[in-house]
Amino acid sequence: MPRLGLLPRRAFAALLSQLLRPPRTACVRALGGHSQIAEAMVTSQLKPHQEKPSFIIKTPRGTRDLSPQEMVVREKILDMVISCFKRHGAKGLDTPAFELKEVLMEKYNEQSGLIYDLEDQGGELLSLRYDLTVPFARYLAMNKLKKMKRYQVGKVWRRESPTMVQGRYREFYQCDFDIAGQFDPMIPDAECLKIMCEILSGLQLGDFLIKVNDRRIVDGVFAVCGVPESKFHTICASMDKLDKISWKGVRHEMVAQKGLAPEVADRIGDYVQHHGGVSLVEQMLQDPRLSQNKQALEGLESLKLLFEYLTLFGITEKISFDLSLARGLDYYTGVIYEAVLLQTPAQVGEEPFNVGSVAAGGRYDELVATFDPKGHKVPCVGLSIGVERIFHIVEQRIKTSGEKVRTTETQVFVATPQKNFLRQRLKLIAELWDAGIKAEMLYKNNPKLLTQLHYCENTGIPWVVIIGEQEQKEGVIKLRSVATREEEAIKREHLVAEIQKRLSQS
Amino acid sequence: MPRLGLLPRRAFAALLSQLLRPPRTACVRALGGHSQIAEAMVTSQLKPHQEKPSFIIKTPRGTRDLSPQEMVVREKILDMVISCFKRHGAKGLDTPAFELKEVLMEKYNEQSGLIYDLEDQGGELLSLRYDLTVPFARYLAMNKLKKMKRYQVGKVWRRESPTMVQGRYREFYQCDFDIAGQFDPMIPDAECLKIMCEILSGLQLGDFLIKVNDRRIVDGVFAVCGVPESKFHTICASMDKLDKISWKGVRHEMVAQKGLAPEVADRIGDYVQHHGGVSLVEQMLQDPRLSQNKQALEGLESLKLLFEYLTLFGITEKISFDLSLARGLDYYTGVIYEAVLLQTPAQVGEEPFNVGSVAAGGRYDELVATFDPKGHKVPCVGLSIGVERIFHIVEQRIKTSGEKVRTTETQVFVATPQKNFLRQRLKLIAELWDAGIKAEMLYKNNPKLLTQLHYCENTGIPWVVIIGEQEQKEGVIKLRSVATREEEAIKREHLVAEIQKRLSQS
Repeated sequence: MPRLGLLPRRAFAALLSQLLRPPRTACVRALGGHSQIAEAMVTSQLKPHQEKPSFIIKTPRGTRDLSPQEMVVREKILDMVISCFKRHGAKGLDTPAFELKEVLMEKYNEQSGLIYDLEDQGGELLSLRYDLTVPFARYLAMNKLKKMKRYQVGKVWRRESPTMVQGRYREFYQCDFDIAGQFDPMIPDAECLKIMCEILSGLQLGDFLIKVNDRRIVDGVFAVCGVPESKFHTICASMDKLDKISWKGVRHEMVAQKGLAPEVADRIGDYVQHHGGVSLVEQMLQDPRLSQNKQALEGLESLKLLFEYLTLFGITEKISFDLSLARGLDYYTGVIYEAVLLQTPAQVGEEPFNVGSVAAGGRYDELVATFDPKGHKVPCVGLSIGVERIFHIVEQRIKTSGEKVRTTETQVFVATPQKNFLRQRLKLIAELWDAGIKAEMLYKNNPKLLTQLHYCENTGIPWVVIIGEQEQKEGVIKLRSVATREEEAIKREHLVAEIQKRLSQS
Repeated sequence: MPRLGLLPRRAFAALLSQLLRPPRTACVRALGGHSQIAEAMVTSQLKPHQEKPSFIIKTPRGTRDLSPQEMVVREKILDMVISCFKRHGAKGLDTPAFELKEVLMEKYNEQSGLIYDLEDQGGELLSLRYDLTVPFARYLAMNKLKKMKRYQVGKVWRRESPTMVQGRYREFYQCDFDIAGQFDPMIPDAECLKIMCEILSGLQLGDFLIKVNDRRIVDGVFAVCGVPESKFHTICASMDKLDKISWKGVRHEMVAQKGLAPEVADRIGDYVQHHGGVSLVEQMLQDPRLSQNKQALEGLESLKLLFEYLTLFGITEKISFDLSLARGLDYYTGVIYEAVLLQTPAQVGEEPFNVGSVAAGGRYDELVATFDPKGHKVPCVGLSIGVERIFHIVEQRIKTSGEKVRTTETQVFVATPQKNFLRQRLKLIAELWDAGIKAEMLYKNNPKLLTQLHYCENTGIPWVVIIGEQEQKEGVIKLRSVATREEEAIKREHLVAEIQKRLSQS
C-alpha cells in the first residue's frame, strides 16, 4: 500500500511540474477527438473518512486516450495492415509489454535513455519494450527457432522529449513484419519493400518514396572518409537526424559534440548528398575510394541485386538509393529503408504538418545471436509501419471532409410508442441478440417515441422495431426504415427472419 | 544510458534470485506452447569491444510470449467476445497502459500493493493500469461524459504472488463492457448479465453459473452482524477470498488478522452459506434483522427487480443469488456478479485444474465522481471477461484433441521444378499479392520441388502454382490441389481469375 503520509507533498510537486512545464499538452489536445486534460483539481471521495490528495486529472505526459471515433479509424487501418502481413504468410506473435532490463540494454545506441524503466519493487529489473524487434529476437533465441515469418502489432513506449519531436507520442502502436532465417540473398529483403509499397498504396496516403541504403555502405563511407571505427555508432546516430535537422546542424553535432575532424565531416557531406536509382548504385561501384572498401562493396552489390528483384515486383519507381539514410538503431547490419510521404496531404482547411517517415526497417543479422548462449546467428530482415502518423493523416482527412463516422454497428433499435412496454421490449431485444442481430434500446421504463427515433438518427441505426398496444393486439410488430421513414407490419413470429432478410440485402 | 559499472553485480543478483526462487516457471512452461526459459548464460555480442553482463534469457516473471498457435486461439476468442459487445451497441475505447499513480491510488483496497509502478525518471509518477475500469472512469470524468456504452480490450498488469495463485499471469488481457449513465434501475445491470451468458454459452465452455449479490447486502449483513463500519472494507476483502480458501480460513483471517470478534464472524458465517434463486431474495426480505437494514433492503429490492428482467431474458437458470459473493475491489456500490464454470472440463488426458471465475463485474456508482472536480456522479455498471482462463481451457482442449491449428492463412504457393526460375516466381507472386491473394514461395534461388510441396503440406496451403520450362513454353502454369494432388494447366493470363474462382468456391 502506498504510504499516505507522502501524498500531499508528491501531489504538490506533480502540480508544480505541470504548471512550470512548456505547454506540450496543447499539441496532444489538437490531435485527439476529446480534450485530454481537465484542468481541475480533484478530490478523491471513495473513502470520505480519509484525507485525499488533490491532483490534475489527465493522461500521462505524451500519451492519450483514443475516443470511439478514433478507434474506428485505427481499427480500419490496422485491419488493412494486418491483412497485408497475412497475405505474405506471416504468423502472429505476442510478447510481454515489459522485458528484463538486460534484454533491452545495448540495443538502441544513444536512444537508450528513452527507455521506461519499472520501479524495483523487489524482483527483477524490468523495462517497457522500446520496439517489437528486440523482443522478437529474444523470442527466437529463447525458443531456438532458426526461421520464422511473423507479424506483431502492439504498443511500445519511448520517453521522447516533447520539445524536440512535435506530434509524437510516448506510447504508440507499432506494426511489425519480420522474416528470420538463412535464405538466399535479398529475396526476403525485397519482399519487405514490396509489403511497404502494398500498405502505403493501399492506404491511399498520396505519393510516397522509400529511401534505401545499406549499413555496410554507411560504415564504408565513414571508413573512407576517415571516421575512427570507435566513433561509427555515434556518428551514425548523428547522421540519422538528417530528416529532422539540416546537414549543417548534423555536421555541427559531429564536429562540436562528437569531436570529428571538420574535413572528415565534409567528406561525409559529399557522399550523403547523393540519391538516385540503380544507376547511382553503379556509379558508387565505380567510386575509386568506396569500391576499395570491402564493406561498402558488399553493400553496393547487395543493393544491385535488390534493385533487380524490385524491378520484377514492379516497384522501382517508389525506391530511392539514398546515401544520407542511416537509421539510428544499433542493430542494423545490412540493407536499411525508410518510407516518406512526398507531399503533405494538405487540403483546403487542413493544417500542414510534417509527418516524417511512415514506415521503416532493415536487416539485422547479429541481433538474435546476442541472446543465444552459443552466439548462433539467425539472420533477420523486417519492417515497421508507423501507424500513429498514418492515423493522424487519415483523421485529419475525415475532419476536413466532415464525414460522420459511425462508432457503433447497431442494426436494429427496439422502440415503443406507449408506456409500460418495457417487458415486451426486453423480451423482444433478447430474441434479436440471440439471433446474432446487433440491437439496442433505451434503458428507460417509458421513453418518448421521438427520443427513441432521434437516437437512431443520431447514431445511424438503420432499422427500428416498434411494438405498442395495437401491434400486440394484432400479433405484429412494425418495422421502420430510419432513412425512408416507411413502416410495414410484420408478423411477430417472423420478425427475426424478416430482419435477417433485410440485413443480408443491404 | 545505464551505468555499465553496476551491471555484473545486478546480473549476478538476478541469477541468484532465479536459482533460489521456487519453480514458478514450471507452471508457466506447462501452459505455453514454447518453452519460456532458455536456461543458459548469454553474453551480449553486439559490441565485442565492450564487456557484457551475462544473464538468463527469459520473459519477466509471471509473463509469457504467445506463440502463433496460441495467437490463433486468442484471436478467435477475442473476436467472439468483441462481436458480442458490438451486438449490444458498445463503442470502442483505448487508454494508455499507464496512468498517473494518483489515478489508481485508493481504488483497489488491499490489492494496491500489486500495482506495478514505473521508475521515477524525472517526471510524473506513473503506474501500469490494474484494470480497465478505473481508466474508463477517469476518461468519463476527464471528458465530462455523462453516458457511454463502451468496450475495451487490453492488457492489464498485477504483481500477483505466484505461490498464492497458481496459473495466473502478471500480465493478462481484460475484455470489458460497461454502461455509464443515469438510467432506470436494473435495466443495464440485467443486460450485463445477458452479455455474460451470451459469451459463455457462445464459447461452449460447458455449464456455468453466475453468482449474484449486492454490495449493499454485503454491507447490510456486516452491519447486522456487528462489524464496525471502519472494518467493512477489510472484512469484505477477506470475504472475497471465499472462492480460494474455505470459510474456516476466511473466518480465521477475520478474527486473527483483522481483529473481528469471533461471534461476529460466526454470524457472518450463517449468512454467507445461503445461495439460491429469486425465492432466496424473498426469504431474505423476510429476515427480521436484514430487512430492518436500509442498505440491505435496497439491495434486496434491486435484486428482486433484476430477477424479473432476467426472466424476460430467459437466463434465470444460469443465475444464483449468493450471499458469500463479495468482490474484492473497493469501487463496487450495488449489484455484483461473478461467473464460474460448474465442472472442470477435464476430458481423458486433460490435467484437471481450477479455472476459478471466468467473468465478473458489478455496479460502481461513485467511482467517476472521485475524478470529477465537482464530484458529479456518473452511475456505471459493467463486466470483465476473464479471457486468460478461457484461453487456457480452449488450448487444453485443442491439445487433447490433437487438432492441428493453421497459423497462417496462405492460399497459394508459387513453386517451380526447375533451376533458374526465381525471376519468374517473383514476377508471378507479385501478381498474386497485387490481386489480394495470400501467397508464399521459398526464399531460395533453386529449391527442390519436393521441399516446396512438403512446405505446403506442413503448413496447410491448399493450392500450388507451378511454373517451369514446359509451362513457360506453352504460356500456361500448372495449378495443383495439395489435397487431391490433381494438376491442371491454366493459361498464364487467366491465372489470377482462375485462382479467385477456386478460392470463392471453397
